[in-house]
Amino acid sequence: MAVTHFNPTCSKPRLHSSQLSFLSRTLPIHRHCSFAPLHRTQHARISCSVAPNEVQVPAVTTLDPKGKAECYGVFCLTYDLRAEEETRSWKKLINIAVSGAAGMIANHLLFKLASGEVFGPDQPVALKLLGSERSIQALEGVAMELEDSLFPLLREVSIGIDPYEVFQDAEWALLIGAKPRGPGMERADLLDINGQIYAAQGRALNAVASRNVKVIVVGNPCNTNALICLKNAPNIPAKNFHALTRLDENRAKCQLALKAGVFYDKVSNVTIWGNHSTTQVPDFLNAKIDGLPVKEVVKDHRWLEEEFTEKVQKRGGALIQKWGRSSAASTSVSIVDAIRSLVTPTPEGDWFSSGVYSNGNPYGIAEGIVFSMPCRSKGDGDYELVKDVIFDDYLRQRIKKTEAELLAEKRCVAHLTGEGIAVCDLPGDTMLPGEM
Amino acid sequence: MAVTHFNPTCSKPRLHSSQLSFLSRTLPIHRHCSFAPLHRTQHARISCSVAPNEVQVPAVTTLDPKGKAECYGVFCLTYDLRAEEETRSWKKLINIAVSGAAGMIANHLLFKLASGEVFGPDQPVALKLLGSERSIQALEGVAMELEDSLFPLLREVSIGIDPYEVFQDAEWALLIGAKPRGPGMERADLLDINGQIYAAQGRALNAVASRNVKVIVVGNPCNTNALICLKNAPNIPAKNFHALTRLDENRAKCQLALKAGVFYDKVSNVTIWGNHSTTQVPDFLNAKIDGLPVKEVVKDHRWLEEEFTEKVQKRGGALIQKWGRSSAASTSVSIVDAIRSLVTPTPEGDWFSSGVYSNGNPYGIAEGIVFSMPCRSKGDGDYELVKDVIFDDYLRQRIKKTEAELLAEKRCVAHLTGEGIAVCDLPGDTMLPGEM
Repeated sequence: MAVTHFNPTCSKPRLHSSQLSFLSRTLPIHRHCSFAPLHRTQHARISCSVAPNEVQVPAVTTLDPKGKAECYGVFCLTYDLRAEEETRSWKKLINIAVSGAAGMIANHLLFKLASGEVFGPDQPVALKLLGSERSIQALEGVAMELEDSLFPLLREVSIGIDPYEVFQDAEWALLIGAKPRGPGMERADLLDINGQIYAAQGRALNAVASRNVKVIVVGNPCNTNALICLKNAPNIPAKNFHALTRLDENRAKCQLALKAGVFYDKVSNVTIWGNHSTTQVPDFLNAKIDGLPVKEVVKDHRWLEEEFTEKVQKRGGALIQKWGRSSAASTSVSIVDAIRSLVTPTPEGDWFSSGVYSNGNPYGIAEGIVFSMPCRSKGDGDYELVKDVIFDDYLRQRIKKTEAELLAEKRCVAHLTGEGIAVCDLPGDTMLPGEM
Repeated sequence: MAVTHFNPTCSKPRLHSSQLSFLSRTLPIHRHCSFAPLHRTQHARISCSVAPNEVQVPAVTTLDPKGKAECYGVFCLTYDLRAEEETRSWKKLINIAVSGAAGMIANHLLFKLASGEVFGPDQPVALKLLGSERSIQALEGVAMELEDSLFPLLREVSIGIDPYEVFQDAEWALLIGAKPRGPGMERADLLDINGQIYAAQGRALNAVASRNVKVIVVGNPCNTNALICLKNAPNIPAKNFHALTRLDENRAKCQLALKAGVFYDKVSNVTIWGNHSTTQVPDFLNAKIDGLPVKEVVKDHRWLEEEFTEKVQKRGGALIQKWGRSSAASTSVSIVDAIRSLVTPTPEGDWFSSGVYSNGNPYGIAEGIVFSMPCRSKGDGDYELVKDVIFDDYLRQRIKKTEAELLAEKRCVAHLTGEGIAVCDLPGDTMLPGEM
């Protein structure tokens, strides 16, 4: 049943130890809203709600007398989707949490999630926006724009800075928020700062999210952030955590199409192996163009071996030079692609790339890291690794290099994954330029 | 037949007198790409194209030897949509021109147009992006992100700074570009500066666009810009020009929903009358909630008369305060709504608002201006004005005020509409805050 009685409460944030490290300074008391399902807070005072079809005037001024004006008016309402003809056939509401929700990538993504283009025209959604104390006003602005967009499927919006509140019952967690590298900051510093965030968010997911929440980590360094996150969420299957390498896959497809002189819809079976960094391996050995191996179509093997990978990796940097900003729009498209790949069956014979936990992989890649590999899905939110891929020395050697980097990153964040004392011996700086 | 043989040429821009005023300074010679259909340039050298299913390696280096690197590789290809099973049932490609294409509103809108969510999953699109000399690099960045998004329906992208090239054969022109008001700039100055842009773009549309192009003007002051545009395009039906007041309509619906304590999908028949400015009239007399007149549902008539309109008008300013930017995301959603309202039949009994040419209107509103009024469409791109609306003294008086403003704006731009010498007697400053 899709009856969703929600209880908005605007309160001082609870402080968890995880949060203190997350916020890296003491939180001033800041009011914000969250919406907890009634079955969890049965005895809480209910405000800002109306019974189905009951007209209550004025709804907004019925809010908590302490003045919780941040409750998102239209999304505070109670309704029964089964009571109306046009919504009766809809699926059960799903809860989607998004971190970094005041940023540019989210500003594209949230409107796609709300419009129905990701989960379909019969899937109502609740958006749970996680920001930082600094961005809470901007989050309100985002919620206002979501109101003004009148998306019929968008039934709830809540905002907050406490992941323990925002991630409550989340069935999807799209983790975009991350600190960008400041001037003079070492790679190891960045791993630690963002690792702290993802450790805290992992603990929060472990405590309050749906037991089968699907997590897509976008904030960089996304593979190791995803590893930290899953290690801090032992009660959620490790298989449910993804690091986004889909933008790399999309860029690789486009570059292969350009080289072959075909439209990009002719390119399939492209794997990004390994880390979302300059050690990533866009695989042209298994990729196909119009069903044929790329190497049979693109005869310029020197280009494939010496230029292709760099073209994929340098795309983000080239874009920043042109556009003056990082690629928020195409990143959000690739997040949509990544979600759709998990909720719709993979086309026969094809696959998609995702950074997933490497345990049990059939490729001989080290276990215990988050490594991008070729996946197929039945459309049930789960995936399996593709077995029929081939390797040659060139590919093996490249994969070894990105594997070594991820193992080094893992040693560097051992203090965040419960594996002892961190030892940081990173092999050079391989961050992709400007992304996040 | 959807066979579209396109011929990309990268050339120095032709300079039109209209352009010189448009660009307000002499154009340095800047190369850019445009893609003219072969039937117009039959004898031009063809580059950057491949026959259907012919694999040509490498395609990109077959470009014009003078190094037209700005030709958007993947979108330079030739293909036959009828030759492939999955595209055979598609409609004929449509040409959509967008001005201000490097701006934030377009950055949201272009990806919606390309994804299929506006014109449907069987409608291939060509995007023609108009920027300024200053933004040409950013436009390339946008084209790169569109490439990386791998939208199957997006078959052509071209960029340019000459509206005579970019608007060629356009079937939709979404005119977002406008100069923002600089410090100390008077309203009259802004009307003139943006009026010059829209006069030039009207002449270009008149010269090269489809004879039935639908034009939606978003750049402010959008009503008078639309008037200038249509007056400069006498060969295109005046009825085809729209000024965007849909964001105002959406905001009005949201505010009525909030006040009534209902979800926004219960609010219908909302008209924005008049100018997209603070004189606009959100009509609560004809609006309905759950099929009932708003005044029967919202008993607080003082709120309706004294607060509602201001809430709608101040929404944009409130958002800028929260979010630090103007409302690009919800504006682009409202542009999508405006297009969809013209290409899908209006639901029985409902209507939508659009700023349209006032000639022949049944409401007694002055002719010869672009005035937002209630419209219905059969979904064929055209519309008719709704006849069964009621007026009371309050509504009439408000409508008179916004009408007076639009007539004053019209006198102020007489030099741009071919109606003689401009006389500027604007009644105060009624620009909406921060929007464009």
